[in-house]
Amino acid sequence: MNVRIAIDCMGGDHGLPVTVPAALSFARHEPGASLLLVGRAPLIEAALARDALVAEQYAMVRDRIRIVHADEVVEMDDSLTTALRSKKNSSMRVAIETVKDGAADAVVSAGNTGALMAIARYVLKTQAGIDRPAIAQLIPNKTGGVTACLDLGANVDCEAEHLLQFAIMGSAFVSALLDKDRPTVGLLNVGEEVIKGNEVVKRAAELLRTSGLNFQGNVEGDDIFRGTVDVVVCDGFVGNLVLKASEGVAQMLAGFIREEFTRGPLSKLSALLAYPVLRRIRRRGDHRRYNGAGLLGLRGVVIKSHGSADAYGYEFAIRRGFDAASHQLLERTATAMAPLLARISESSAAASAAGADVAQV
Amino acid sequence: MNVRIAIDCMGGDHGLPVTVPAALSFARHEPGASLLLVGRAPLIEAALARDALVAEQYAMVRDRIRIVHADEVVEMDDSLTTALRSKKNSSMRVAIETVKDGAADAVVSAGNTGALMAIARYVLKTQAGIDRPAIAQLIPNKTGGVTACLDLGANVDCEAEHLLQFAIMGSAFVSALLDKDRPTVGLLNVGEEVIKGNEVVKRAAELLRTSGLNFQGNVEGDDIFRGTVDVVVCDGFVGNLVLKASEGVAQMLAGFIREEFTRGPLSKLSALLAYPVLRRIRRRGDHRRYNGAGLLGLRGVVIKSHGSADAYGYEFAIRRGFDAASHQLLERTATAMAPLLARISESSAAASAAGADVAQV
Repeated sequence: MNVRIAIDCMGGDHGLPVTVPAALSFARHEPGASLLLVGRAPLIEAALARDALVAEQYAMVRDRIRIVHADEVVEMDDSLTTALRSKKNSSMRVAIETVKDGAADAVVSAGNTGALMAIARYVLKTQAGIDRPAIAQLIPNKTGGVTACLDLGANVDCEAEHLLQFAIMGSAFVSALLDKDRPTVGLLNVGEEVIKGNEVVKRAAELLRTSGLNFQGNVEGDDIFRGTVDVVVCDGFVGNLVLKASEGVAQMLAGFIREEFTRGPLSKLSALLAYPVLRRIRRRGDHRRYNGAGLLGLRGVVIKSHGSADAYGYEFAIRRGFDAASHQLLERTATAMAPLLARISESSAAASAAGADVAQV
Repeated sequence: MNVRIAIDCMGGDHGLPVTVPAALSFARHEPGASLLLVGRAPLIEAALARDALVAEQYAMVRDRIRIVHADEVVEMDDSLTTALRSKKNSSMRVAIETVKDGAADAVVSAGNTGALMAIARYVLKTQAGIDRPAIAQLIPNKTGGVTACLDLGANVDCEAEHLLQFAIMGSAFVSALLDKDRPTVGLLNVGEEVIKGNEVVKRAAELLRTSGLNFQGNVEGDDIFRGTVDVVVCDGFVGNLVLKASEGVAQMLAGFIREEFTRGPLSKLSALLAYPVLRRIRRRGDHRRYNGAGLLGLRGVVIKSHGSADAYGYEFAIRRGFDAASHQLLERTATAMAPLLARISESSAAASAAGADVAQV
């Protein structure tokens, strides 16, 4: 099977020096992938010939690389309006359009999240039954596995029905990326504290219980990192804050470790002796391996890389796009949505029948 | 100055074996403190004579220790109704009542948070202008200092006005505990994502700008651990989830470090050589040193210890109670509330004047 991935080569803090080497490396590792490099063609060509090593890599995968020219670039500080209305030939938009046109099976970008979501939503539209797309990410947990968490910031004021839709999308995301049947789903809620959960979350739990998903009930903040369930659902306000706070803790602790191991010559010596262990610890906590968030609920696979990702991290984002497309993320989402859509159409049929009765009276 | 602290000796996972030694140790370290040990008197007496070491410690501080008998105990799984209505002679309630009666300046308990909040609120009432008490905790940050975060779970569905009140209480908490003039305040919000902040947070920011507090604007999840501001304000749903998730990350990373340093004989040897460094790292991350959350906004100083705290951790909770009482937490809160109360009374005077006008027409 050949999976075609469109890469927004201009997006992110670094652009071409990261996206092009990552794309070449991915193409070499994954013979089933073709890549569309989208952006300013002369600059992409220059990046592909940057040095002998890159040129050699490019020669090895040339038949699976295509350059797609796009004049403009969405900058990190462009307003949504500018990105959406004034830059119709941006690398981001052209890359998304290749998915819309059927020329690519997935798109990867490290550009502005808001612009990517707005353009993807405008160009691709949402899948049937999905009111709002959501952002999902895989987060490492204690078990050595990962927990998918969504929404991470696309939707700040959510209704219970949106949380249900996020659960469906997240479930399909995990089932596609990790090849897992009926992933377990938990609803993020406060536990033993004074009042258990806000009103929206309480109603969402009721909806989830009859959703056909493998719903395990409420989970607490620390369950994300315990790996209690495969999918943790929350609104985008909470999800964004929890994710950022978690990154903050990890950075603080990494800083403590660094400081203490460099405090004086004896500490430095013990760091040297413990080097293999410290390297393994760093590797286990390396966030680059979890790079690549899914913009879910759209009629196309869209993956967002962290803006500051290096080539190593960016390649993981391309990998997520490849996995999602090759394991039918969209079809899995549609299948998981089907019972809900059937129920909605039943109840609207019942409502119009009731309406007809009223009209006859 | 003599500060009197009432200790709910029966509360928490461990009860007397933790609370009594912690109280004795605190009394020895802090000559300005008197302690009221509240609970079943015969059991407290037995705990004070448990062994020669404890008895010796007790002898050293006997003149500053008083035993206050209370028959009943609020259990961790008691309903709020049971705790509040059926156990009027619980150690928790009697301890809180000593504050109400003026016999103590602060109360410390490791019992059920919900029960503690409900009883404290019922017995002590809230301070003028405070609609809802909140739970605040000091959290270690990158700078080596601490960030106060509230609310951590007392209030899940909040209005903007509540967030403003939390900011006032949190500001007074930091100013009392850390002896800091005009602590900086940040409002927890999502940053660069698709939509910036939910409606309640947007309105709260407007209120904070004219509150007279040292408001620095929005902060993100990772700012808690960066130490960007002294006080981070959020609703109890978000605060609880962020705190639990942060604890989850820290536990996961500690687990990674432990696993990697015990993986085979060479790793174990390097752990041995790095022992002084690892001990310093553990000490910096030791959550017991941050034990003792403030239940703020009440007409009395109420400190909640973590239920599972050991004597070392519990002593820190007593320390917080001592610091809050000796540095006039309640007076500082009232002072910070004053401009707001003045404005409320002005606008209600204006409203009744307007009402009078209407009546005249």
